[in-house]
Amino acid sequence: MAPPSRYHDNNGAPAQNVVVPAEEETEAPPPQCENRLDHNEFRRQGYQVIDFIADYYARMGNYPVHPSVTPGFLHRQLPDHAPSRPEPHAFAAALQDVRDLILPGLTHWQSPRHFAHFPASSSTVGALGEALIAGINVVPFTWAASPAATELEMVVVDWLGKALHLPSNLLFCGGGGGTLLGTSCEAILCTVVAARDRKLADVAGSKGIGDLVVYCSDQTHFAFHKAARIAGIRRENCRSITTHHGDMFALSPAELDAAMRADVDAGLVPLFVCATMGTTQTGAVDPVRELCAVAAAHGAWVHVDAAYAGSALVCPEFGHVIDGAEAVDSFSMNAHKWLLANTDCCALWVARPAVLVAALGTEQEYILKDASAAGHDVVDYKDWSVTLTRRFRALKLWLVLRCYGVEGLRDHVRAHVRMAAAFEGMVRDDARFEVVVTRWFSLVCFRLRSPESLGGEKVANELNRRLLEEVNKGTDGGSRAPYMSSAMVGGVYILRCAIGSTLTEERHVREAWKVVQDRAVSLLRKMEFIACKEVAK
Amino acid sequence: MAPPSRYHDNNGAPAQNVVVPAEEETEAPPPQCENRLDHNEFRRQGYQVIDFIADYYARMGNYPVHPSVTPGFLHRQLPDHAPSRPEPHAFAAALQDVRDLILPGLTHWQSPRHFAHFPASSSTVGALGEALIAGINVVPFTWAASPAATELEMVVVDWLGKALHLPSNLLFCGGGGGTLLGTSCEAILCTVVAARDRKLADVAGSKGIGDLVVYCSDQTHFAFHKAARIAGIRRENCRSITTHHGDMFALSPAELDAAMRADVDAGLVPLFVCATMGTTQTGAVDPVRELCAVAAAHGAWVHVDAAYAGSALVCPEFGHVIDGAEAVDSFSMNAHKWLLANTDCCALWVARPAVLVAALGTEQEYILKDASAAGHDVVDYKDWSVTLTRRFRALKLWLVLRCYGVEGLRDHVRAHVRMAAAFEGMVRDDARFEVVVTRWFSLVCFRLRSPESLGGEKVANELNRRLLEEVNKGTDGGSRAPYMSSAMVGGVYILRCAIGSTLTEERHVREAWKVVQDRAVSLLRKMEFIACKEVAK
Repeated sequence: MAPPSRYHDNNGAPAQNVVVPAEEETEAPPPQCENRLDHNEFRRQGYQVIDFIADYYARMGNYPVHPSVTPGFLHRQLPDHAPSRPEPHAFAAALQDVRDLILPGLTHWQSPRHFAHFPASSSTVGALGEALIAGINVVPFTWAASPAATELEMVVVDWLGKALHLPSNLLFCGGGGGTLLGTSCEAILCTVVAARDRKLADVAGSKGIGDLVVYCSDQTHFAFHKAARIAGIRRENCRSITTHHGDMFALSPAELDAAMRADVDAGLVPLFVCATMGTTQTGAVDPVRELCAVAAAHGAWVHVDAAYAGSALVCPEFGHVIDGAEAVDSFSMNAHKWLLANTDCCALWVARPAVLVAALGTEQEYILKDASAAGHDVVDYKDWSVTLTRRFRALKLWLVLRCYGVEGLRDHVRAHVRMAAAFEGMVRDDARFEVVVTRWFSLVCFRLRSPESLGGEKVANELNRRLLEEVNKGTDGGSRAPYMSSAMVGGVYILRCAIGSTLTEERHVREAWKVVQDRAVSLLRKMEFIACKEVAK
Repeated sequence: MAPPSRYHDNNGAPAQNVVVPAEEETEAPPPQCENRLDHNEFRRQGYQVIDFIADYYARMGNYPVHPSVTPGFLHRQLPDHAPSRPEPHAFAAALQDVRDLILPGLTHWQSPRHFAHFPASSSTVGALGEALIAGINVVPFTWAASPAATELEMVVVDWLGKALHLPSNLLFCGGGGGTLLGTSCEAILCTVVAARDRKLADVAGSKGIGDLVVYCSDQTHFAFHKAARIAGIRRENCRSITTHHGDMFALSPAELDAAMRADVDAGLVPLFVCATMGTTQTGAVDPVRELCAVAAAHGAWVHVDAAYAGSALVCPEFGHVIDGAEAVDSFSMNAHKWLLANTDCCALWVARPAVLVAALGTEQEYILKDASAAGHDVVDYKDWSVTLTRRFRALKLWLVLRCYGVEGLRDHVRAHVRMAAAFEGMVRDDARFEVVVTRWFSLVCFRLRSPESLGGEKVANELNRRLLEEVNKGTDGGSRAPYMSSAMVGGVYILRCAIGSTLTEERHVREAWKVVQDRAVSLLRKMEFIACKEVAK
């Protein structure tokens, strides 16, 4: 292997991408710096990065949300090997390439016109909290490995739990406890494993892992299926209970009960119910109190996955959606989705931490204890998750809560809910469209009704599929287009407008609706023209 | 719940901790900013954070590596609730609290005197790469979700694999492929699950998950046991094969073979072998080629966990330690441990990506496809890991490789190896001490020999346990003390001096050794005095 001596030398990639900024050219090249954590160098490069990001935010509205690129576009522009030695001014040149090669190929999740999936909610404090974490770079896998980091995590999960009006039995102050993980996928996996090991201990001898059954609805995020599969639950023992439009796609306690009884009759063991607050497709809310009652009869664990909508619980007016949550075993939400905490920051709370630690805990000589912790009931977070290495996420969440305050987070959530209500109103006011599912939070599910002349319901899905494509392309080649996504519920294809980007203002929502209307008009005209020609033939 | 209206109002915590910097006081309070991603605000706060981190690095040598605190110390100083509204100048005040309350309670992993566990290697580019990732905040779970992020990840794992001299069948360019995860724990879990599902498909009907057996040595990191348990492998089906001092604590292929044969004879199914390059306790290296040959006879998956020492492979002189790696199924290493990439950044390569995707892949309507990707063989990284949400880690690793170059990373690794060799030499030159295991990389395992007058080998472990405590306390109450950790191998308690902090220079290593010698002298004197008194009684 002979790596190239210069970054752009070995594949003929365009050298013009490496433009050294003017202010750099006048400086003498920096002396060869052997200290890779030099504070002066950090300050110099750090200001460049801050300016880079600030400029990115300032220009955000100008980027097409989704790039027009084909697979391989970036691969072709980069060398095959890392450079052997950096080119002069490598850091500035790399930032220039980020601007010229990479940013144009990203989907800009921070764009005010990003309405797809769920938001990846950013804030200046959330982003800078991550920067601070990376700069300090401690690894708080045990209390001793960085005491303040563990303690801040314990404090901040209680702060967040209180801010979300969670039942106190899930918080440290009420006998439960929480942790900050990367994603809801991890949170769900950890709880499934904890429930599994508890249940296997209960049924030891008579039943095995192959007899355990987990339950969710057909709206539950695939993260749950994946977690159950990873945990060794048979694929055929994962029950996705069908939901119905009439129930707003919520998991039916009666159907859960029937499924559990049937499984018990078949000699199987109900293990786990994953309820969702705010499903990915339509934002549906499963009835927690009733589901817990059904699960309790079988000793099944109940987890609430509130990945997206959990953030809404900062507003007391949404408290009713988790009525009965004091009976759940665990609850998780992603503060990085809609609570200004930047990726990644998933909070998981459990009512009985000892069950989690029994499944995930480990004891090793080579992990340092601290004599001062002896006799104290110290939390070692490595025993609460899949991973040993972990970042100091608590610092970011603490900064966000402290710098915006609970009321500030409410303002943030309510602004998006207001915009979603406005968008929903615009859809309702246009008879060509319909709101498919009543909105709970800031996600609007809608579709274009297909005129009878085009085949009515029979072609409606295809019509809406094409509408989404047209909307995302926009009217001007993409630069002002909104970016939405889709769902398929009960055989019906719908468009999803998920509002929650920090930069989104009412005008972006109005403009997005105008694009939808325009594209619908032009699509209908085109399809009617084709239909006419078909008839004329 | 009534959160306090001011940060420090509700529990009488010391108000003097919130000191508003002088330059802030002279400014008018900033106008209520509703845009939480305002570019001017980002720049203003961003410079503060950069200065904060730069100052932290400049003062790093002055912090005691490990704080003298007792559990609850931070909890007691913080309010019970998040503030309702932020106090004036909340961001500056929060940074001040980070400086005054949090930093003094951290274990400073970036200290030049941090020799415990393994390093959490930082660099200016690694830290700022994380800042850039957090600022851009895209979520590249599929190619379409952020095309440039997926492509850069594919490019950079090949760059890194080539820089580490990995066999090309593990790289995209050779038919394999890689991804960037958070930690080795995740990497191992993903590969165990992939191996499990492949094996269960192979033995369908005749054997079940309860029959699968995994293998490692008694030196293998607990992450492997944990991963196997999470994946539903029975605890009693995890074989920890005893290692021996004579083999430098490496996993014996002969003993692996014997264990596998015994299991097959008992009707069980060998599934997975976890080999380690650079064990956590002593840096031992398992013989990859021979282990692969044994595993192949049983169709067992071989993973190499090179979490720490994988970074050393940038230096060709270490290439022999993975001799035979072209036969492994997967390989992982943490670029955040010793390759300047800041936490977290675990690279995982697999020879057959399709097996990983078969186990972890999912297909959902609500994940947007991109028409331009149709017909291309696009990687959707959500199908390569536990999680859906993921950070744009490739950007950080790309910046590190580009700005330091492969030769720069070699310089970095070799400097630490040189310092470790120097420390090892100092231990050898002092007859009171012994090097317990010959050093492979930058970890030195040593102990104080216990004089016969104190009971010789019988009390050696206790003596060394006390020595570590004394060393970590230091000679002056801790502010200049090194921080080391311990291991227990073959019944022998040893001290571990793991060199790899970016700020560590030769003088820190010499000073650390001096502290060890001084503490040993004073400890031996104290113990001999006690022993004399015992005899005199």
